[in-house]
Amino acid sequence: MSHEIRIDKTKSPKAKPDQSNLGFGKYFTDHMFIMDYTEGTGWHDARIVPYGPLELDPATAALHYGQAIFEGMKAYNTQDGRILLFRPHKNMQRINVTNARMCIPQIDEDFFVDAVKALVNIDRDWIPASQGTSLYIRPFIFATDAVLGVHPSNTYKFIVILSPVGAYYSTGINPVKIYVENSYVRAVKGGTGFAKTCGNYAASLKAQAEAAEKGYIQVLWLDGVEKKYVEEVGSMNVFFKINGEVITPSLEGSILPGITRDSTIHLLKSMGIKVTERRIAIQEVFDAHKAGLLEEAFGTGTAAVISPIGELNWNGTGIIVNNGCTGELSSHIYDTITGIQSGELPDTFNWTVEVK
Amino acid sequence: MSHEIRIDKTKSPKAKPDQSNLGFGKYFTDHMFIMDYTEGTGWHDARIVPYGPLELDPATAALHYGQAIFEGMKAYNTQDGRILLFRPHKNMQRINVTNARMCIPQIDEDFFVDAVKALVNIDRDWIPASQGTSLYIRPFIFATDAVLGVHPSNTYKFIVILSPVGAYYSTGINPVKIYVENSYVRAVKGGTGFAKTCGNYAASLKAQAEAAEKGYIQVLWLDGVEKKYVEEVGSMNVFFKINGEVITPSLEGSILPGITRDSTIHLLKSMGIKVTERRIAIQEVFDAHKAGLLEEAFGTGTAAVISPIGELNWNGTGIIVNNGCTGELSSHIYDTITGIQSGELPDTFNWTVEVK
Ligand SMILES: Cc1ncc(COP(=O)(O)O)c(C=O)c1O
Ligand SMILES: Cc1ncc(COP(=O)(O)O)c(C=O)c1O
Repeated sequence: MSHEIRIDKTKSPKAKPDQSNLGFGKYFTDHMFIMDYTEGTGWHDARIVPYGPLELDPATAALHYGQAIFEGMKAYNTQDGRILLFRPHKNMQRINVTNARMCIPQIDEDFFVDAVKALVNIDRDWIPASQGTSLYIRPFIFATDAVLGVHPSNTYKFIVILSPVGAYYSTGINPVKIYVENSYVRAVKGGTGFAKTCGNYAASLKAQAEAAEKGYIQVLWLDGVEKKYVEEVGSMNVFFKINGEVITPSLEGSILPGITRDSTIHLLKSMGIKVTERRIAIQEVFDAHKAGLLEEAFGTGTAAVISPIGELNWNGTGIIVNNGCTGELSSHIYDTITGIQSGELPDTFNWTVEVK
Repeated sequence: MSHEIRIDKTKSPKAKPDQSNLGFGKYFTDHMFIMDYTEGTGWHDARIVPYGPLELDPATAALHYGQAIFEGMKAYNTQDGRILLFRPHKNMQRINVTNARMCIPQIDEDFFVDAVKALVNIDRDWIPASQGTSLYIRPFIFATDAVLGVHPSNTYKFIVILSPVGAYYSTGINPVKIYVENSYVRAVKGGTGFAKTCGNYAASLKAQAEAAEKGYIQVLWLDGVEKKYVEEVGSMNVFFKINGEVITPSLEGSILPGITRDSTIHLLKSMGIKVTERRIAIQEVFDAHKAGLLEEAFGTGTAAVISPIGELNWNGTGIIVNNGCTGELSSHIYDTITGIQSGELPDTFNWTVEVK
């Protein structure tokens, strides 16, 4: 598949936001990438146009039946003036895994990486430069048929929007308090947990809101069948360091296969640290803590990169991990991944892709 | 809460579609109802305006995180020229149950029934008259914040659109072939199965597509924990008549509490037929068939009203229910409910609401 990207530049560039107060996903750049899909024709009409509202029929399928998916990735400004993406092909591969589950047509992964590059390049002046900031890239696809009736749409839009962001958690790399969720379920094997589809996120809001009321920043999900095994945390995968070994839940269909998770596993292996992907019961985590063997716990995800867990509450019992401090390993992984992303450390894994 | 509905009538009414070929949800009437919600202000600016596209920011929360819900109900033309709605308050009550699960603000149920009435009244000429046709009413709510980041939106739109429809299944009240789904899961207790939220429908597409390829019109879902108990069928609840008793799965959080289900239960009770709401294993259904005791099976839902099940396939074993014919009870319930809906039978349960 080869596509031309038509470019229609804005005539009225927006004022850029204050870089010291960006927050997450509140500001959008001057342009967006759009491509349409029509059954029979395939993906067509790739274009970069001024950021602006979409005209959607009220019957638009995605609004009714949730046939919509997304990705999240970032572009970074380096000290020496380059722009780096972090493993963008991984995101496009994950789109295709998600698409297959949601009955959305496959995309050409290489082309869409090029499209992201072209868009980021046009809006390169929007990439913030200060520590911890980046340009968040949000590719998403949604069903556009204006017909009611539950079936896969014949038409779709693939859109990429860009948002200059500060740190995801305003508290930075400080350890967070996590609530182990015992009644709500996020996903179950045979469902859509491994796919980055909109419905998974709506389903998580209620538990998150109730945890927030109790003073916790996120919930740790347990498996939906036995409510026994650890799944993931909000928009992050989760790792536990127990007695020198690092353990993370294996990918069995109900959790998202995180790209930061994958990078962390590679990194740990390269450091000679034992990493095991397996089912891990929440009871095992609490037992390890009791035995003094739970050394660190942290979440991994594009938004926060590494988020150390300082406290876990399960069924009314709270445990403090590593005295509520950021662990040595968490720090090291955070520094290494963000160092590679920002070009300050050598890219020994060949993870970055330059935007030229 | 008291609201004025502002009315802005179309200046260019559309041509009405051919009544003999309506299909489902393909045509929309001249007007739609819209109301906005803003945190602090509440629901406001109720209006009936010409049907037309919505201008939505590409970052609109519903497109990314699926915070969107809907309802489905119908208006019927009676022989004597009246317009009837069927138990509309039930739909508005269900919206509030759904909203609570999805962190969407509650609505004023009475006001929204009035809004539906006002809209249907304005587009009354669109209600088809021939047998089996009706005006499908689609109320829906979606999150409109144009901010990325997973949290409940501060703004929403409540919209009602109308579509003149033929029979949902083009094969009419003829029995359908149903595939018992053994690998995909629709919902699980603690999830969103009881809520009419968009993500549930997207999650069901893949199983439905695979069943269709095998020649089945819908899937029968099993519970997500043990894959043992019957849940529901596509957009219908399910009933089995076994040895004179009618059994339907109890409402335990993973299936939608259907209004047609509720009406069917009332009707059966009034007929002196034993109805039991309980968990029912798919094995029990197949065993009953083997013993010659499975008399009928049927689905219930607004779209099809009653859909007799002629064949069930589970794990490669097919059973033919009632010789593949529409059962006596299925027919009777269909005739009674549609008779009440169309004003041909006396409304002994006080289920209809007239639009004046
Ligand atoms: C549910 C969920 N789990 C985990 C992750 C982490 O994935 P990644 O490291 O690719 O950002 C995300 C965020 O993308 C997510 O949404
Ligand atoms: C998943 C699901 N189950 C059951 C039903 C039947 O509900 P009702 O009888 O209220 O239409 C529907 C349709 O509304 C549905 O979407």
